[in-house]
Amino acid sequence: MEQRLPNWLKQRAYLTPERKAVIFENETLTFHDLFQKAVDLAAKITSYSISKGDTVGIMLSNHIDTFSVIHAQQQTGAKTLFLNLRLTPSELAWQLQDANAKLLIADAESLGKLKEIQNECPELTCISLSELIDSPKSAFEPEEEFSLDSICSLMYTSGTTGRPKGVKQTYGNHWWSASGSSLNLGLSEKDVWGCTVPLFHISGFSILMRSVIYGMPVRLFSKFDVEAINQCLIQGEITILSVVTSMLQRLLADLNDQEYHEQFRCMLLGGGPAPLTVLEQCRDKGIPVFQTYGMTETSSQIVTLAPEDSIRKLGSAGKPLFPCQVKIMKDQEDAPPNVEGEIVVKGPNVTHGYLNRDDANKESFHNGWFKTGDIGYLDEDGFVYVLDRRSDLIISGGENIYPAEIENVLLSHPDVSDAGVKGMDDPQWGEVPHAFVVSNQDLTEHELLDYCRRNLAKYKLPKKIHFVNELPRNASNKLLRRQLPGLISEVK
Amino acid sequence: MEQRLPNWLKQRAYLTPERKAVIFENETLTFHDLFQKAVDLAAKITSYSISKGDTVGIMLSNHIDTFSVIHAQQQTGAKTLFLNLRLTPSELAWQLQDANAKLLIADAESLGKLKEIQNECPELTCISLSELIDSPKSAFEPEEEFSLDSICSLMYTSGTTGRPKGVKQTYGNHWWSASGSSLNLGLSEKDVWGCTVPLFHISGFSILMRSVIYGMPVRLFSKFDVEAINQCLIQGEITILSVVTSMLQRLLADLNDQEYHEQFRCMLLGGGPAPLTVLEQCRDKGIPVFQTYGMTETSSQIVTLAPEDSIRKLGSAGKPLFPCQVKIMKDQEDAPPNVEGEIVVKGPNVTHGYLNRDDANKESFHNGWFKTGDIGYLDEDGFVYVLDRRSDLIISGGENIYPAEIENVLLSHPDVSDAGVKGMDDPQWGEVPHAFVVSNQDLTEHELLDYCRRNLAKYKLPKKIHFVNELPRNASNKLLRRQLPGLISEVK
Repeated sequence: MEQRLPNWLKQRAYLTPERKAVIFENETLTFHDLFQKAVDLAAKITSYSISKGDTVGIMLSNHIDTFSVIHAQQQTGAKTLFLNLRLTPSELAWQLQDANAKLLIADAESLGKLKEIQNECPELTCISLSELIDSPKSAFEPEEEFSLDSICSLMYTSGTTGRPKGVKQTYGNHWWSASGSSLNLGLSEKDVWGCTVPLFHISGFSILMRSVIYGMPVRLFSKFDVEAINQCLIQGEITILSVVTSMLQRLLADLNDQEYHEQFRCMLLGGGPAPLTVLEQCRDKGIPVFQTYGMTETSSQIVTLAPEDSIRKLGSAGKPLFPCQVKIMKDQEDAPPNVEGEIVVKGPNVTHGYLNRDDANKESFHNGWFKTGDIGYLDEDGFVYVLDRRSDLIISGGENIYPAEIENVLLSHPDVSDAGVKGMDDPQWGEVPHAFVVSNQDLTEHELLDYCRRNLAKYKLPKKIHFVNELPRNASNKLLRRQLPGLISEVK
Repeated sequence: MEQRLPNWLKQRAYLTPERKAVIFENETLTFHDLFQKAVDLAAKITSYSISKGDTVGIMLSNHIDTFSVIHAQQQTGAKTLFLNLRLTPSELAWQLQDANAKLLIADAESLGKLKEIQNECPELTCISLSELIDSPKSAFEPEEEFSLDSICSLMYTSGTTGRPKGVKQTYGNHWWSASGSSLNLGLSEKDVWGCTVPLFHISGFSILMRSVIYGMPVRLFSKFDVEAINQCLIQGEITILSVVTSMLQRLLADLNDQEYHEQFRCMLLGGGPAPLTVLEQCRDKGIPVFQTYGMTETSSQIVTLAPEDSIRKLGSAGKPLFPCQVKIMKDQEDAPPNVEGEIVVKGPNVTHGYLNRDDANKESFHNGWFKTGDIGYLDEDGFVYVLDRRSDLIISGGENIYPAEIENVLLSHPDVSDAGVKGMDDPQWGEVPHAFVVSNQDLTEHELLDYCRRNLAKYKLPKKIHFVNELPRNASNKLLRRQLPGLISEVK
C-alpha cells in the first residue's frame, strides 16, 4: 500500500513553529520561518515551468539559503539532483543530462562553471541563486501530503564501471533512515545536529531530513572550521556531529586539554573503521564515538557501532539499524560467521535502484536485497566488519573517489596503454589516490596530471603517478588493485 | 509497496540481547530471554494446528507470562484477539465467533468462564495457560520478516449500534504508532515505560509494542497498585507512565509531600481532558503531564498535548503526532477554526477497518480518513479540543463503556419499553453509567440489575436505574442522551 504522510515541513511548521530549524553563522530560522521561505522559493522555482516530478539540479555550497532551497524543492514536488561542487563542468553536464534536469540552480561559487555546462546542455535552464531569489512568483500551493514512494533526491555514485550512476532516493528511504537512526541513537528535545559535511552528500542531506522529521535544529557550517566546531562542542551547542576519521583527528589535535560539554552525546563516525589510537584518545576524553557504515544507496547509516563496543569490537562497523538487515554472500550462498564475502543489505532506507541503469539494477538488486560490492564478514555475535569498500573505493577527507573513474580518464590519454589507481594512506586525508600507468611514450607525470585536471575534479587527481612496466591482472584479466602498491619499488 | 521489516523480537534480541525487556514483580526478562521464551511458546501454540493468519484469542491478565504469550503469538504469525477479562461468557463467545478464533488461551483468573464459552463455541479449542506451557512443541521456525500490512491484533470496540466491532490492527499500525510517539516524546536509553493498564487494551498493548521497537523495558503491574507505582516513580524506576485521570488523582492523593524522581519525564494522560485543579497540582509538583487523545482504531495516541501547553490550552488534547492528520467535518465540509463538528483523522497508525463489517467500514472510512464519531473543534493554532466522545462513550476508570450496549440489554427485558444510558460524574471512576428506563410494569431496580448482571460485564452495570415516564428523542426519534440527567428530578 502506498504510504502517504503529511507534507513534512508544513506539518513541522504546524506542530512546532517556534522551534529552531537551522542555525548558520549569525542567522537562525525557526520551522515557521523555514516553511515561509521554502514556499516563497518554491513559487519562484515553479515560475521556471518546474512541476511535480521534474528534476532540478542544485550546485550549492553549505549556506542557510541552500537549506531553504532544498526544502523549497520538496514543496514543489520536483526531484532534487544534488551536484558535487567539485566536479568539472563536463562531469556535471553528464549527470544533468543523464537525470534529464530541466533547471540548474548554482550559487556564486559555481557560476564559473555554469557557462560551460550551458554549452554542453543547451536545453537546460541555468540560473544563479540570486536570480532565483529575484524571480517573480508563480501561483503555487504546496502539496498536502508526501508519498513515501516518490523520488525526493538523486545523487550520483560510481562503481566498478566508469560512468557514475544516479541513486534514486525516495521520501520513504529518507524517512526510514531518520527513524532507524533515532531508534538507535535516541532522540532528545535538546538535540542539535552539527552539519560540517556538504549538504550535497547523503551524510549532510540526511541531517537536513532528520531535522524536519525530528523537529531538531541543524547547526550548519560552510566548511570544516576546526576551531569553531570545537568551540560549539565545548559549549554544548551541538549534541551530535557527523564526521570522518580525518575530521575527528583534526578536532582532537585542536582540542588539547579541553573537554566537550556533557550535552555532546554522539560523534557519528563514517568513512571506514577508526584507528585504535583515535578511539583510545576519544575514550580517555569521554567522547562517545559511534562508528557507522553506510552509503548513498542506503540513504546514510545502515550499520552502527555503539561506543561501549568500540574497543571490544575494534574494526567493526556495528550492527544494523532496527529496520535493516545485513548478510554476507559467498558463492551465491549466505556465508557463516567469520567467513568473508560480499556485504548484502536490505531495508526500507535502501534505494530501489539506479536511474536509467537496468543492467546495474539487475546486477545489484534481488528480492529487496542490495549487493553493496563491499567485502566483509559477520562475527559470531553478528557484528559487521567491512574489509574492502567496493571497487577499492578511496575515501579521501570524506569524499568518495572511485579508482575506475580516474583510470578511465588516464586510459583516454593517447599515450597511456594501461592504468590502475589505488588509495594510499595519507596522514591528512585518510587516503589519497595514486596512479600506476603503463606508457611506451615519453609521457611525464606533469603532462598527464595536466590532462587529468581538465577531466577530473581536483580532489580526484592522483597525488602521485607511478610509471610501471605492467599491471597485475588475474586470469580473467581483472585488474588486481590491491597488488598495485607492491609495484612502487620497481617504478621505471 | 508492501513494506517488510525484520521479525521485531528476533531483531531486537540480535541487536540488544542484554537489555531488559520486561520487569514484573521479582522477575526480569532480557530481550534474549524473551525471544527464547516466545519461540518456545510459539512451538507449543502451533502444536494446536495454529498457523500463520489464524486467530487465537487470549484472555490473560497482566503477568510476565502474558507478555511472553503475546510475543509468541507474533512469532507464529497468528492474529491475536485480545479479550477483555471482565466480559461475560456470552460477550466473549460472540467476539470469539465473530473473529473466527481457533484457539483460546485463558489464565487461572478466567478458567471459570472457559466452560461456558466452550458450550457456546463447540469448534473452539480452549486451553489454560498452564496447559499451554505443558504442551509438546511442534517443529517451528519463526518468520524472518514481518509485513507491515499483516494483521497483528484484533480488539473489539463498540459504537452507536449494539454489537462490538473488531478493529484490525496491522504491524504497520503499531509501528507507526510507536514511531510517531517517539518523535513526539523523544527516546532515551534510560526509558522505562510503566504499564499498569491492561495489556488487552490498546493503551497497554501499545507499550509492549514500543518496548520491542525501542529496545526499552516495560515495568509491568498486575493491577493499579497506587503505593507501589508511586514508589517506582519516586525512585526513578519508571520514566514514562500511561494513566487516565482517576489513576492520576489517586497517585496525587497518595503522594503527599513527596516528589517524583527527575528521571520521570512523562505522565501520558488519556481518557479525556483533565480538570484544571489536577493539572495545577501536577505543575506545582513538577509532574510533566502529556494529555492525549486516541482510541483502539488509532492504535493508541493520535493527538498529544505538551506539558508547556497544558494550562494555556486547557481542555485541549493537543496536536497530531507527526505522521497523523486531524480535521473537523461539518455538513460534509472541512469546518473552519473554532467550529464544532466530527473529528476525522488520518495516519498510518489508523486501522484499515473493522472485521466483517462492510457497512460500518463504508460509513467510517473515506480516502484514508476515519470518522471517529467524536465531536470537537480545532482552535486557531490547530489545537484539537474533544467535546463529546462518540455515542456518548462513558470512560469509567479507564474502561470504555458504550451506552448503546447497556441499552440493548435493558431493552431485551420483557418489562422494559424504553431505555437510555448516560455517564454521570463520579469522584472515584471519573464517570459511571446511569440508566433511564420506561416500564409500565411493576419492575424494581433490584430485579432489573439482576437481569443485567447475567448479560453485562460488572463494570458496565448501571450504578443507578431511574424509572421515568418518557425519554427525550429528536424528530427522527434519536435518543437525546445529553438531556437524560434533566429527568432525574421527575423520576417516578
